[in-house]
Amino acid sequence: EAVARPVGICSMMKLPVQASAAGLDAAFVGVPLDTGTSNRPGARFGPRQIRAESSLLRRFNGSTGAAPFDSLHVADIGDVNVNPYNLPESCRLIRGSYQHIVGSGCVPLTLGGDHTITYPILQAMAERHGPVGLVHVDAHTDTADRALGERIYHGTPFRRCVEEGLLDCGRVIQIGIRGSSYDPDPYKYCREQGFRVVPAEECWMRSLAPLMAEVRQQMRDRPVYISFDIDGLDPAYAPGTGTPEVAGLTPAQALEIIRGCRGLNIVGCDLVEVAPMYDVSGNTALLGANLLFEMLCVLPGVKTM
Amino acid sequence: EAVARPVGICSMMKLPVQASAAGLDAAFVGVPLDTGTSNRPGARFGPRQIRAESSLLRRFNGSTGAAPFDSLHVADIGDVNVNPYNLPESCRLIRGSYQHIVGSGCVPLTLGGDHTITYPILQAMAERHGPVGLVHVDAHTDTADRALGERIYHGTPFRRCVEEGLLDCGRVIQIGIRGSSYDPDPYKYCREQGFRVVPAEECWMRSLAPLMAEVRQQMRDRPVYISFDIDGLDPAYAPGTGTPEVAGLTPAQALEIIRGCRGLNIVGCDLVEVAPMYDVSGNTALLGANLLFEMLCVLPGVKTM
Amino acid sequence: EAVARPVGICSMMKLPVQASAAGLDAAFVGVPLDTGTSNRPGARFGPRQIRAESSLLRRFNGSTGAAPFDSLHVADIGDVNVNPYNLPESCRLIRGSYQHIVGSGCVPLTLGGDHTITYPILQAMAERHGPVGLVHVDAHTDTADRALGERIYHGTPFRRCVEEGLLDCGRVIQIGIRGSSYDPDPYKYCREQGFRVVPAEECWMRSLAPLMAEVRQQMRDRPVYISFDIDGLDPAYAPGTGTPEVAGLTPAQALEIIRGCRGLNIVGCDLVEVAPMYDVSGNTALLGANLLFEMLCVLPGVKTM
Amino acid sequence: EAVARPVGICSMMKLPVQASAAGLDAAFVGVPLDTGTSNRPGARFGPRQIRAESSLLRRFNGSTGAAPFDSLHVADIGDVNVNPYNLPESCRLIRGSYQHIVGSGCVPLTLGGDHTITYPILQAMAERHGPVGLVHVDAHTDTADRALGERIYHGTPFRRCVEEGLLDCGRVIQIGIRGSSYDPDPYKYCREQGFRVVPAEECWMRSLAPLMAEVRQQMRDRPVYISFDIDGLDPAYAPGTGTPEVAGLTPAQALEIIRGCRGLNIVGCDLVEVAPMYDVSGNTALLGANLLFEMLCVLPGVKTM
Amino acid sequence: EAVARPVGICSMMKLPVQASAAGLDAAFVGVPLDTGTSNRPGARFGPRQIRAESSLLRRFNGSTGAAPFDSLHVADIGDVNVNPYNLPESCRLIRGSYQHIVGSGCVPLTLGGDHTITYPILQAMAERHGPVGLVHVDAHTDTADRALGERIYHGTPFRRCVEEGLLDCGRVIQIGIRGSSYDPDPYKYCREQGFRVVPAEECWMRSLAPLMAEVRQQMRDRPVYISFDIDGLDPAYAPGTGTPEVAGLTPAQALEIIRGCRGLNIVGCDLVEVAPMYDVSGNTALLGANLLFEMLCVLPGVKTM
Amino acid sequence: EAVARPVGICSMMKLPVQASAAGLDAAFVGVPLDTGTSNRPGARFGPRQIRAESSLLRRFNGSTGAAPFDSLHVADIGDVNVNPYNLPESCRLIRGSYQHIVGSGCVPLTLGGDHTITYPILQAMAERHGPVGLVHVDAHTDTADRALGERIYHGTPFRRCVEEGLLDCGRVIQIGIRGSSYDPDPYKYCREQGFRVVPAEECWMRSLAPLMAEVRQQMRDRPVYISFDIDGLDPAYAPGTGTPEVAGLTPAQALEIIRGCRGLNIVGCDLVEVAPMYDVSGNTALLGANLLFEMLCVLPGVKTM
Ligand SMILES: [Mn+2]
Ligand SMILES: [Mn+2]
Ligand SMILES: [Mn+2]
Ligand SMILES: [Mn+2]
Ligand SMILES: [Mn+2]
Ligand SMILES: [Mn+2]
Ligand SMILES: [Mn+2]
Ligand SMILES: [Mn+2]
Ligand SMILES: [Mn+2]
Ligand SMILES: [Mn+2]
Ligand SMILES: [Mn+2]
Ligand SMILES: [Mn+2]
Repeated sequence: EAVARPVGICSMMKLPVQASAAGLDAAFVGVPLDTGTSNRPGARFGPRQIRAESSLLRRFNGSTGAAPFDSLHVADIGDVNVNPYNLPESCRLIRGSYQHIVGSGCVPLTLGGDHTITYPILQAMAERHGPVGLVHVDAHTDTADRALGERIYHGTPFRRCVEEGLLDCGRVIQIGIRGSSYDPDPYKYCREQGFRVVPAEECWMRSLAPLMAEVRQQMRDRPVYISFDIDGLDPAYAPGTGTPEVAGLTPAQALEIIRGCRGLNIVGCDLVEVAPMYDVSGNTALLGANLLFEMLCVLPGVKTM
Repeated sequence: EAVARPVGICSMMKLPVQASAAGLDAAFVGVPLDTGTSNRPGARFGPRQIRAESSLLRRFNGSTGAAPFDSLHVADIGDVNVNPYNLPESCRLIRGSYQHIVGSGCVPLTLGGDHTITYPILQAMAERHGPVGLVHVDAHTDTADRALGERIYHGTPFRRCVEEGLLDCGRVIQIGIRGSSYDPDPYKYCREQGFRVVPAEECWMRSLAPLMAEVRQQMRDRPVYISFDIDGLDPAYAPGTGTPEVAGLTPAQALEIIRGCRGLNIVGCDLVEVAPMYDVSGNTALLGANLLFEMLCVLPGVKTM
Repeated sequence: EAVARPVGICSMMKLPVQASAAGLDAAFVGVPLDTGTSNRPGARFGPRQIRAESSLLRRFNGSTGAAPFDSLHVADIGDVNVNPYNLPESCRLIRGSYQHIVGSGCVPLTLGGDHTITYPILQAMAERHGPVGLVHVDAHTDTADRALGERIYHGTPFRRCVEEGLLDCGRVIQIGIRGSSYDPDPYKYCREQGFRVVPAEECWMRSLAPLMAEVRQQMRDRPVYISFDIDGLDPAYAPGTGTPEVAGLTPAQALEIIRGCRGLNIVGCDLVEVAPMYDVSGNTALLGANLLFEMLCVLPGVKTM
Repeated sequence: EAVARPVGICSMMKLPVQASAAGLDAAFVGVPLDTGTSNRPGARFGPRQIRAESSLLRRFNGSTGAAPFDSLHVADIGDVNVNPYNLPESCRLIRGSYQHIVGSGCVPLTLGGDHTITYPILQAMAERHGPVGLVHVDAHTDTADRALGERIYHGTPFRRCVEEGLLDCGRVIQIGIRGSSYDPDPYKYCREQGFRVVPAEECWMRSLAPLMAEVRQQMRDRPVYISFDIDGLDPAYAPGTGTPEVAGLTPAQALEIIRGCRGLNIVGCDLVEVAPMYDVSGNTALLGANLLFEMLCVLPGVKTM
Repeated sequence: EAVARPVGICSMMKLPVQASAAGLDAAFVGVPLDTGTSNRPGARFGPRQIRAESSLLRRFNGSTGAAPFDSLHVADIGDVNVNPYNLPESCRLIRGSYQHIVGSGCVPLTLGGDHTITYPILQAMAERHGPVGLVHVDAHTDTADRALGERIYHGTPFRRCVEEGLLDCGRVIQIGIRGSSYDPDPYKYCREQGFRVVPAEECWMRSLAPLMAEVRQQMRDRPVYISFDIDGLDPAYAPGTGTPEVAGLTPAQALEIIRGCRGLNIVGCDLVEVAPMYDVSGNTALLGANLLFEMLCVLPGVKTM
Repeated sequence: EAVARPVGICSMMKLPVQASAAGLDAAFVGVPLDTGTSNRPGARFGPRQIRAESSLLRRFNGSTGAAPFDSLHVADIGDVNVNPYNLPESCRLIRGSYQHIVGSGCVPLTLGGDHTITYPILQAMAERHGPVGLVHVDAHTDTADRALGERIYHGTPFRRCVEEGLLDCGRVIQIGIRGSSYDPDPYKYCREQGFRVVPAEECWMRSLAPLMAEVRQQMRDRPVYISFDIDGLDPAYAPGTGTPEVAGLTPAQALEIIRGCRGLNIVGCDLVEVAPMYDVSGNTALLGANLLFEMLCVLPGVKTM
């Protein structure tokens, strides 16, 4: 490298920063919103910290041979604006920004932010691509109807998406789900929509490569969105998050999931719920940065050396 | 003491917890809201942490001789409900709760929460007492008009109060104000309303006892509310807060201010903006607990031994 | 939910707080003692922090379908008093308190506190139930004879219990044991009593479901006590503890152990050694809260939906 | 310097470690006990952390010109043994160890540990020197009679000393006292013994040099012991302590106090109540190390360059 | 403001980032080097964290009325490259970069990095301006000759500058000096060069406004450089630094010093030794950001509203 | 035990400290250098913290029955001196010190320090033993050629060793390698030298006992050095390190690797890259201490009870 690691303005992987997605194949973009959080806030600083820790990343994926920067035109396009005092307004702002990003033909790789943001992002995705398939890693299904009377917060995005026809429900998989619940049968709604739910219990001490073979079948060649809530992982690996649940996935399984998406028609990705203050080591953000890099490495068009 | 310090459910000062303010002279009450925060969130956990650290407090004020629990009937009435996803709705919930508290003749001592909450609290106070005087300690005047188009967040409560006639503007003092500003003349609005603004610079290395003599003159014998934003203090003493500003007040000055309010017709008090995760020692919350205890000690009717 | 998550006094799972166990089927109770700790103190704040983090828990066990609150009458009965300056006196205080709890027919779910407390708790259990079987998860056997000449500290509870005939030694299992030792054959005493010792090495990378089938055989239908030292888990999952040992159990295994106790005649449970200051994320306490909830879910009489 | 700062075994100021005080004029000695703590434990790690941070200290006092190591024979004699499970036994162990140290004519500079330890230390001091004068810096008078029925814990050492005639009560001064109290007149006992109590309020924003001139008069040329509880300082400077009280002394005042003791017949010193886990920066321990070095610099026989 | 505070790539005060100083009146520039640190490393992350926390700053100085962005063309020009494995080479890299910055007529405001960096910066300054006056705030004089045989590390920059004639020695002032020393007369070298040394003891509990009137006399109208080591402040205010010394300056005094430089012919400024990991609150970096903003506000040509 | 755990000067496992290796079979030795770190510094405090946390270790290995202190003469010989400002000079200092240690026939167990130090250590090892076999656990191969033009930093030690003929390349194994890379084929250099590289992916969810059987074949009965970079483990277990990589080994696997070395002709060992400030729990250092103890337990001549 020509410069020392701590040198330089904190963009994702030290990529050039540009104001718009025009001309890009893929773009990292931050959405620093956490007003949708039900428990510990702080994910508004997720994008900042993920960018900071991403300085440890290098340009090749030594494990898979992927060479994303030799394949695609990629930049960091900064953050979309949000309104932390007004969730519905934030959703409108996000939707508008992503309409521009997606409209230019660019694949967004989003640094969240709490999971609320996936709802307006998927509005923009579906406007362009029609209902999308979804690979959703999370401790929670995020399909609640409302909380405290509100329809928009980080527990509801995928129900809103279903209601608006943004998802191709037979091509939805939710992996890593677990934890206590408000209802004795917490997966009822998901099953009724046709989602496949893979509870964390089915993942324990097991390679997820076979599961991903099935997922590739399920997704076929139509548009797929990857939404990765860092709380899908066990809190040992990702303490810096707002609603941790015990006994989650491992980073190895996370890599199996993302690498298992290679070959799919991925049209967008996000990594949400990194709340840095709960992990003073910075390692949750570093993990988030790595997962975003791995998503970049499986985008259509990325060559393997 | 009959029980060891860590023993017992975390109420404020281990006071009995009761569901309503009925029959109380004064009550500690929490408002765990932080959606109005412009920078670092976390004040939603202020009430919880203040209560936890308050276990170190004992029942007498050895410095002033005040014996509040031998003078007044005091309890912890828990938290009022809020809606973290909807600031205007939270304000309505808070206003409603405080109408009940104040309606029963009880003086509320509030554990915040971000400073947004003082707006609906003062709505309830003024309904009962008419426009109130205000002793406001803060790094910020909190009289902005709006941010991101929103009229309600922690930068605007006192402008909203002025607009609604909740404040007796000639009896408002703001102490500890400082920091960079959006405007070259940041106190213009306050001056125009007739507020007295005492910038932190005028407090540096100086006893505030003389100032408080003037404040007692200013407040006369009419109703006064004390609103204490912990960021009025220097971040060395109160690192656990969301919008810290350098070169602030000292705890000694904070005690001079609160003890200097003795004799005033205090009808309510709050201590806001404790965001515990930014102070892992717990000492910001401990300071908040002490300041709330000191406020209790200067309430009308508290005897001195 | 009707109230936001941070709202409310910190009882376990926001359960009602009541002063005694009378009329309860099961009760959460704290024992904030850590004077028995040999290394890092701090477990005196375990109950407080477990309660704080338990606000994330919901009322159903989505994984097992257990509905404990639809099956049993449960409350948080606060903390028993202890004397941190005097271990033998603390043991007398604890024993006395538990005699009352157990005497009312209530099953105690204890929030520790260091492991010393299990000795006086088992005194009270055995008074009512006779010698009990024990499912003991821990990195340590806690069967030392003495340290620094003292017979009571967190390394000796189960030897004291054996000496007093509180345990049905053929129905004792210790799972997760590991670490360096004062003796080249550290399990000799346990073997001699007839305990089954399952070192951590035998658990590595393996489901414990088969082991638990054997445990159910071993325990038969007679009274069983579950004593869960959080240090049985690997420090990655539970950094907030006083005597961590490397290469321990996983949360998934912890859930397999507890869920594997379903059907046993469980008469009491504890979760000990959470020392929050060594885990500023709060996640060790959250894990402790989850394990206590899982223990509640396998108590006799809990229905599954 | 010949070696880099992080190099070397952690003795106080990298002094040679020796097993006994024989032949030494002064010795640093640790007492890693914290069972006497009423609130947050952790002071057992005070000696370890003070030694670690003391590596930043250099051999001369540039401010006063004192050259202690050119004047006295000084070493680190390690820790005295304690029994964390048994406070009275710990006191016996400490007393015995200090009888040996003092018996050899060596002045002990103690790294605590909670304040309980000063009681047995003063037993040993008074055996040799008769009743001693006391310069006591603290937020608390530590003259309670008992807590939870116990006569020995960190709130009682100086009452025990009075009862046993270890103090020359007319030559006792307590500086920095403050905080809420169990009694409306918290200094009554001290006044009755003839102690001078200087509350923190009398120290605020003021040089303590004039006070120390009076103290030198008070102490005359007879034996004096300095007992410095780090909580005498404001928690901003010393967050790492177990029972912090707001609005305390500053480090400048602490230096004025210690430097103001120059010329007194100092026979021993301690620095107690550093609980490192509450200050992850290490700076409380560093402050403790500096205060111990300053005490060394005012010992009889220390030359000034 | 048009955007929420956490939104945007982390440049200093969200200023535009540009690659060179061409066309700028003043520029913020980072030097992320910490190999010169003698004690705790980490200042390499000072620039990153100062930028992150600077998002709290607003564009006007409400206290002084300064409007720097209405007066000067200012940007963030990123970091100069350094070689953390080779201090002399790093110095060459820094010198070269600053020759370009200074050569374009731009005033650099440096975000350090350890204090080593001021040596090559002053090489570049003096090339352009001749020997400069120096306002140096620090706990240390940084005029050692060498350590471990090395002539370049953070304890020597100003001796190197003297030797190379970069300083106008009669116009050098060092404020805040304190701490133990390697030599009984630690200011001898400085005095011999004609520096004015103001030890921290002379600053305690005192306004520094009178001192600054003298400094303005001393500096006259010739070029002055401000070098501000954050450890000049007390560690209570700035715990995040590598070689903290007790009993230092206050932020109010720091503001008095910087604001007292108004009117001087300032040609460059730096703020060094912020090591963020020792202050998890981020407040040391926030203080550093504020001090840099205050320096900007006193640059020649800045208008006051 | 005769003394309480926190009692005593912090040597490794409370072993006696001696100035030289003379007469010892094995010695713990610290190398507090971190100037070779490319990302987060802090490993200079690794030896100090590992020693501090090692107080939890007891003298027998209960899992393997190893009784090292009944078999070998072992001590802590303190730290070798280093020059943090000059990497090549540090390497010369380390090499010199290890020539003495190895020359006396003592097996060094090194507490790092960053991985740079293994290069001069292996120079000394090979001088005595000829080219050695290497069991290298790490996330990185550490075989880069240079960075920023420098040939010596923590990314290059094993390439330097190859170039100088210090390694018996057919007897080198690197386990746990992973992470993004500067090159699409990151193992090319290693393969060309004849190293066996076992990427982390091949270790996931799998016992490494079979691998170690092969390693014992590979190493034969000739001299072997174990170099264990703590970042070989997943950051969940070892957050306190400078260049963490996700999805690493588990502590169980680490124990399998080290215990699998039993019977080999081990001539030296190191445990490097513990940077304590990134793990405030102390558990990374505790893990490091355990791994060093386990290495001691497999040294030639250690008896099993
Ligand atoms: Mn989610
Ligand atoms: Mn989730
Ligand atoms: Mn405010
Ligand atoms: Mn404020
Ligand atoms: Mn145990
Ligand atoms: Mn245990
Ligand atoms: Mn005390
Ligand atoms: Mn005290
Ligand atoms: Mn400096
Ligand atoms: Mn300095
Ligand atoms: Mn390495
Ligand atoms: Mn490595």
